[in-house]
Amino acid sequence: MTAPTAPISTQIQLVSRPSGWPTHDDFRTVQVELADLQPGEVRVRNEFVSVDPYMRGRMNDARSYVAPYALGEQIQGGAIGRVIASASDDVPEGAVVLHQHGWSDLVQADAGTFRVVPEIPGAPLSLRLHIMGMTGLTAYVGLTAIAKMREGDTVFISGAAGAVGTAAGQIAKLLGAGRVVGSAGSAEKVALLTEKYGYDAAFNYKDGDVRAQLAEAAPGGIDVFFDNVGGDHLEAALDAFNDDGRAALCGAISQYNTSEAAPGPDNMANIITRALTLEGFTVGKHLQHAPEFQERMAQWFAAGDIAYDETIVDGIEHTVDAFLDMMRGANTGKMLVRV
Amino acid sequence: MTAPTAPISTQIQLVSRPSGWPTHDDFRTVQVELADLQPGEVRVRNEFVSVDPYMRGRMNDARSYVAPYALGEQIQGGAIGRVIASASDDVPEGAVVLHQHGWSDLVQADAGTFRVVPEIPGAPLSLRLHIMGMTGLTAYVGLTAIAKMREGDTVFISGAAGAVGTAAGQIAKLLGAGRVVGSAGSAEKVALLTEKYGYDAAFNYKDGDVRAQLAEAAPGGIDVFFDNVGGDHLEAALDAFNDDGRAALCGAISQYNTSEAAPGPDNMANIITRALTLEGFTVGKHLQHAPEFQERMAQWFAAGDIAYDETIVDGIEHTVDAFLDMMRGANTGKMLVRV
Repeated sequence: MTAPTAPISTQIQLVSRPSGWPTHDDFRTVQVELADLQPGEVRVRNEFVSVDPYMRGRMNDARSYVAPYALGEQIQGGAIGRVIASASDDVPEGAVVLHQHGWSDLVQADAGTFRVVPEIPGAPLSLRLHIMGMTGLTAYVGLTAIAKMREGDTVFISGAAGAVGTAAGQIAKLLGAGRVVGSAGSAEKVALLTEKYGYDAAFNYKDGDVRAQLAEAAPGGIDVFFDNVGGDHLEAALDAFNDDGRAALCGAISQYNTSEAAPGPDNMANIITRALTLEGFTVGKHLQHAPEFQERMAQWFAAGDIAYDETIVDGIEHTVDAFLDMMRGANTGKMLVRV
Repeated sequence: MTAPTAPISTQIQLVSRPSGWPTHDDFRTVQVELADLQPGEVRVRNEFVSVDPYMRGRMNDARSYVAPYALGEQIQGGAIGRVIASASDDVPEGAVVLHQHGWSDLVQADAGTFRVVPEIPGAPLSLRLHIMGMTGLTAYVGLTAIAKMREGDTVFISGAAGAVGTAAGQIAKLLGAGRVVGSAGSAEKVALLTEKYGYDAAFNYKDGDVRAQLAEAAPGGIDVFFDNVGGDHLEAALDAFNDDGRAALCGAISQYNTSEAAPGPDNMANIITRALTLEGFTVGKHLQHAPEFQERMAQWFAAGDIAYDETIVDGIEHTVDAFLDMMRGANTGKMLVRV
C-alpha cells in the first residue's frame, strides 16, 4: 500500500522587486504539496485568475493603499474557481467561489477567505472577475461617487479599451452621459470603442498629441474624466475641462513602469481657474456601493445592454506573460488566465 | 461767475498685457473729469483700495473664471469708501460702501454697484477688504466647503503670512484643527506665524527644500492643504498627505509671473494611492457661505480671537507699486492702498 499522492498547487511568486518594467526573472513558479484539509478549510480549483494593472504597484516596496507583495510568497489577486474538497459547512464542495488568493491553480485556505457566488444565467464565470465584479464596480464608483457624473455630461475615458474602460464607457452611456470619448492604443481598439462599446468618438493616442486629438473629439470640452493612464492624458484633460469639471483618477498605467519620477501636468493652474476637482480612488474603499452596482448591472446585463471582451491566456504557467502583455496593452477588454 | 470745477478722478488703467512680471509700463495713471451726477448714481471717495494676487490672472488674455481686464480701462477690484454725493435713495451721502470699481480715488456709478456696510465697532474700515471680507471668506470656504476640514486634522497652509494665509491659519485653529503648519518667505514672517497667528510650526521656504521642511514640521503627515503658492509647495504636500487628504487649491502665486508653462508635481500618482482630493476654487462661486461666515467671524472678532496685519501704501498713485510689492511677497498680511 502506498500513501495517497498529495495534491500539488502550482503557484507564482514574486522573487525580486522590478525597477521599471518587470521581467520573468522577477517571478518564479513553484510546486507546493498541499497538506491534508484541516477543519474549516476548503480546497478550490481555480478556473480563471485575474491579472490587473494595480498589481504592478504592489510589486514595489512603497507606501500605498495595500501592502506590497512579500518576496518569496504567492502573488495575491482576484480569482474564481470551484470547491473540490470542503471541511466547512459554509462553503460546500461544488460551490463557485471568488477569492483573493491569486496566482495558482489550486488553493487551500480557511473557508472565510472565499465568497460563494451564484452562477450568472447565460454568462461565463469569468465575468465575476471583470464587468460583473470589481472592474465593473470600479467603473461605476468612479463615474458616480467620485466624478459625480450628471446626465448630459461629456465624459472622457483614457485607456478606454481596457477592462475598466470598456465598462466605464457603457455605464456612462447607460447613466445618461451626453457624449463619451475614449482613447486607446491601436486602430483596432479605437474601432471597437465606437462600434461595440457605444463611444461617440475615440482616438489612438499613439497617432499624435493627446491634447489636439482630445480637443477634436470633444469640441465642446469635457465635464468628467475617468483616468486609467495619467501623464499626457491627464494634462490633455486639464486643458479640455469645462468649468466645474471632475476627474476620477483610477489608474496611471503610463507611469507604472517608469523608474524615475516623471514631471506632472504643466497646466495645474487650470484646476483653480476652472474650479476643477481631481479625486483619486481605489475601489476597495467604496464597497458600500457594491449592492447597488450589482443590482443595476444585473438588470443591464439581462436586458442585453452590456458588451465585453476577454483576452484569455491558457495555463497558470503563462500568468506572468499575461500580466506583462496586459501592462503593454496587448489586451482588449479584460486580460484573464484560464487555468 | 465761473463754472464750478468738475471733480477729478485719478484712475489706474492697464495698457498692455504683461508677459512674466508686470512692470510700470503695463499701466498708466489718468485724470478723468467726472460728469454731473445722474439720477440713481452715487459718487464715492475711496478710503482703501485692494491689491490681490488674482488680479495678475485678469491681466492676461486667457480663459478664466473672470473676464480679462480690458486694455485702456480702469483696473477693477475691491475697494471701500464713503459716499460724498448721492442721487439715490438707497445709498445715502455719508454711507460706507464696498464695491468692485477698483483702482481710483473717486468713483461714480450706479448705486446698485455699491453695497452699504455697517462700520465694525473697534475696527478700521479696511478689514472689510480682508479678514472680515472676501479674504476671510476665501479662507473659510477653502477650509470648510472645499477641504472639508475635520477636528484634529493637521492643516498645511502655503503662503501663510499673506492675507488669505493669516486668516486661514486662525480659522483652522478656531474650527478645531489639531496642528497647523505654515510656510512663508522670510524669518520675520515665520516668527509671526507662530507668535501671533497660532501656527504650531512654520518654515521659510527660501531656506531649502520644501518637501524636507514640511516633513519635519508635520511629522505625522498632513490631512488638509490650503494652497496659495502651487509649484514645489503642491509637490511637497502630495508627498506629506495622509490617506484621504484634501487640498483646497486657492492660488498659485509661484506660477503667476512665469511666461512659460512649468512642469507639475512629479508625484501625481499619490493622488490615487492615497485617495486624495484636489479641488480648485474661487470664492466668487461660494458666496452662499457668506452669511454664515460673517456671523462666525463677527463673534470671533468680538471675542478678541482674530489677529491681522496690514501693509499699507499711501496714495492712489502708488497702487502699482503696492501690487508689485505684494506679488513679490513684500507684504505681511493684507496689502492695501490708503487713498
